[in-house]
Amino acid sequence: MPQHTDATHDPALRSWVESANAAGCDFPIQNLPFGRFRAQDGGARIGVAIGDRILDLQAAGLVAGDDMNALMAAGPQARRALRARLSQGLAAGSAQQAAWQDALLPQAGTTMLVPCRIGDYTDFYTSVHHATNVGRQFRPDNPLLPNYQWVPIGYHGRASSIGVSGAAVRRPRGQLKAPDAVAPVLSPSRRLDYELELGWFVGAGNAQGEPIGIGEAEDHLFGVALFNDWSARDIQGWEYQPLGPFLSKNFASTLSPWVVTLEALAPFRAPFTRPEADPQPLPYLDAPAHRAAGAFAITLEVLLQTERMRAQGLPPAVLSRTDTTRAAYWTPAQLVAHHTVNGCNLQSGDLLGSGTLSGPGPGEAGSLLELAVAGRQPVRLPSGEERSFLEDGDTVTLRGWCEREGAARIGLGEASGTITGG
Amino acid sequence: MPQHTDATHDPALRSWVESANAAGCDFPIQNLPFGRFRAQDGGARIGVAIGDRILDLQAAGLVAGDDMNALMAAGPQARRALRARLSQGLAAGSAQQAAWQDALLPQAGTTMLVPCRIGDYTDFYTSVHHATNVGRQFRPDNPLLPNYQWVPIGYHGRASSIGVSGAAVRRPRGQLKAPDAVAPVLSPSRRLDYELELGWFVGAGNAQGEPIGIGEAEDHLFGVALFNDWSARDIQGWEYQPLGPFLSKNFASTLSPWVVTLEALAPFRAPFTRPEADPQPLPYLDAPAHRAAGAFAITLEVLLQTERMRAQGLPPAVLSRTDTTRAAYWTPAQLVAHHTVNGCNLQSGDLLGSGTLSGPGPGEAGSLLELAVAGRQPVRLPSGEERSFLEDGDTVTLRGWCEREGAARIGLGEASGTITGG
Repeated sequence: MPQHTDATHDPALRSWVESANAAGCDFPIQNLPFGRFRAQDGGARIGVAIGDRILDLQAAGLVAGDDMNALMAAGPQARRALRARLSQGLAAGSAQQAAWQDALLPQAGTTMLVPCRIGDYTDFYTSVHHATNVGRQFRPDNPLLPNYQWVPIGYHGRASSIGVSGAAVRRPRGQLKAPDAVAPVLSPSRRLDYELELGWFVGAGNAQGEPIGIGEAEDHLFGVALFNDWSARDIQGWEYQPLGPFLSKNFASTLSPWVVTLEALAPFRAPFTRPEADPQPLPYLDAPAHRAAGAFAITLEVLLQTERMRAQGLPPAVLSRTDTTRAAYWTPAQLVAHHTVNGCNLQSGDLLGSGTLSGPGPGEAGSLLELAVAGRQPVRLPSGEERSFLEDGDTVTLRGWCEREGAARIGLGEASGTITGG
Repeated sequence: MPQHTDATHDPALRSWVESANAAGCDFPIQNLPFGRFRAQDGGARIGVAIGDRILDLQAAGLVAGDDMNALMAAGPQARRALRARLSQGLAAGSAQQAAWQDALLPQAGTTMLVPCRIGDYTDFYTSVHHATNVGRQFRPDNPLLPNYQWVPIGYHGRASSIGVSGAAVRRPRGQLKAPDAVAPVLSPSRRLDYELELGWFVGAGNAQGEPIGIGEAEDHLFGVALFNDWSARDIQGWEYQPLGPFLSKNFASTLSPWVVTLEALAPFRAPFTRPEADPQPLPYLDAPAHRAAGAFAITLEVLLQTERMRAQGLPPAVLSRTDTTRAAYWTPAQLVAHHTVNGCNLQSGDLLGSGTLSGPGPGEAGSLLELAVAGRQPVRLPSGEERSFLEDGDTVTLRGWCEREGAARIGLGEASGTITGG
């Protein structure tokens, strides 16, 4: 694939922030993701993660205020220029070191905020394996609906309840109805689940009535974060027809705090894996530039630590691992082109969820529903416990990273949440 | 029903703004709805409709800025106090007349804005008649799903594309697939429709994790406007499974500019019409205070004027008329209680759509899909034209009002939009 890389991607580049040079660090100088944090004075600030530190962009004189949406709206040229300044200033030997030293603060102990004002949040359904796995449980005879290979299926989600890694997730109550019951009951959900997703942030938006072409779609994306779309499967099963999921999803979602930009992802492109035998996308979802750019290759992992595991000193256990190139049937650019083809206006800071990213193999599923086959094959944990759904005290952590020969590894950090009683 | 009325509702009350005293005026002194408009200096202002005028609340010294969401967040006590000041100041003989005269501007020629920043928009499905009519078309054997009588069905909609009365509505393009076609095509929608809805605005919100009880739910509502949820039925039919409508709805929605407060609606309460034989609501959707308050009684009307009708000098034709007490199976308070029962946080300015309000009788349907029975019985217009779906140049206007013996009639104004080519 063409890798649109520049000096900011040079794997030999090192930072005067020593922790950024450690092997396996998510935030080396080649990454430079953006986030928002609570400053000492109580206000919000925009920062960039570097090693185990945050560079306060206002203190460093690089941005005027705390409006991440404005930074997102500025588009790719402005973002690349800022990235170049950051890369130069944070590089070992930079003349900026003395001036920026005081603009650094530790990530540990700093409160991170939702990265921007999310006007609208759309959730897609880009993993054909997830769609098939879940479809099989709701419709055994008809798991993958006929529109799936043509339409990047999506629906609107709830923006207000999106939080950031570390926030507690209260078990939701809702109407549950057993198949043989006459009436539903109001009860805490008994089938609480996570969903491993990526959240793509919109950069520059579009005017209402003016679709974004597939060839320009990536120019309208700012970056990506990990996203856990917590789901109450029992509430979902009873409420979701005919208009889709609602209370089963909108009680909480959890983002990782650092948004990794499209520039940081540039070295990690890979060919599409849509099977040749499948229908090819309609022209508005297909373009030479889009084909040439390819997919993004991001490795993703889900970890679970129960209360008992914590008590026993056991580390979080890896439940699944997959890769976007194996899981995603549609690219982020296709989501943008599809979302706007009818004239719908995207705005800076809008969030496009990938949907649960499940790969084809065993151990690649992005939800417990799939891993435990709807409770029929509970997942066994190192503590001897089993899980078909989440229990109070369970901590779910999503992780993601990109690595390939000849490029510096970068990470997305983590999105973590602990279930509390409803 | 108990009518929690006070001196502001006195039908004998008259205003020194003469146009407010005209028979049939939507905005008499008993109404006092809030809206936002573009001021001469280009900024946004909050205003109150009185007759054919707008009282600029900032110019009248009643509010400091243009933040309608803050006014909404202030809650019912503050709103009632402001209403009392407005009522006294606009009453005939008021000492405020001289001071407020200069704060009045004509509605004609003033650009109205979306009333507030809508963080999240949820659309419900509160008319059992609409659910049955539409269900019959998609599922002839199974029109009303088993959850309908238990769950106030809702789903998330798109906030960014909500506009205000008068904005053009561009015909959306999207994937259409004929039943016998092998593949879909990208095409302008050929089955474009309107939906007659009410939009309820959230006043004071709730913290995440803290449901709003049914007994207090109305205290969290600010007011109501007309709402047209334009819908492309052909896009919807192909995309909507399994996650619900998306591009078929999110290209545009149209609000009326004036938000009629719960206080203005106080004289217009009526008993519930949910059939006794139906399941009664679960306790979280039922409470003595809620039963005592009753439903809201609002008459609603849809009008259509085609390009040819305009050319022939024919006025808009009434397509349908119904009443919320006949159409709505769930109350706005039940929508609030249901939306938050899982801990979802509502925020000031959020919009809760009622869903298409179709009554039980012929001529009471809130969409063309229903009136024309999916194209099988096209609607005949005074111009000799027929309509199964909307054509370019068609103007759809929603109107609403409340009237009863012993109370001053109030109106919601109108929500109007004209289809332009896609």
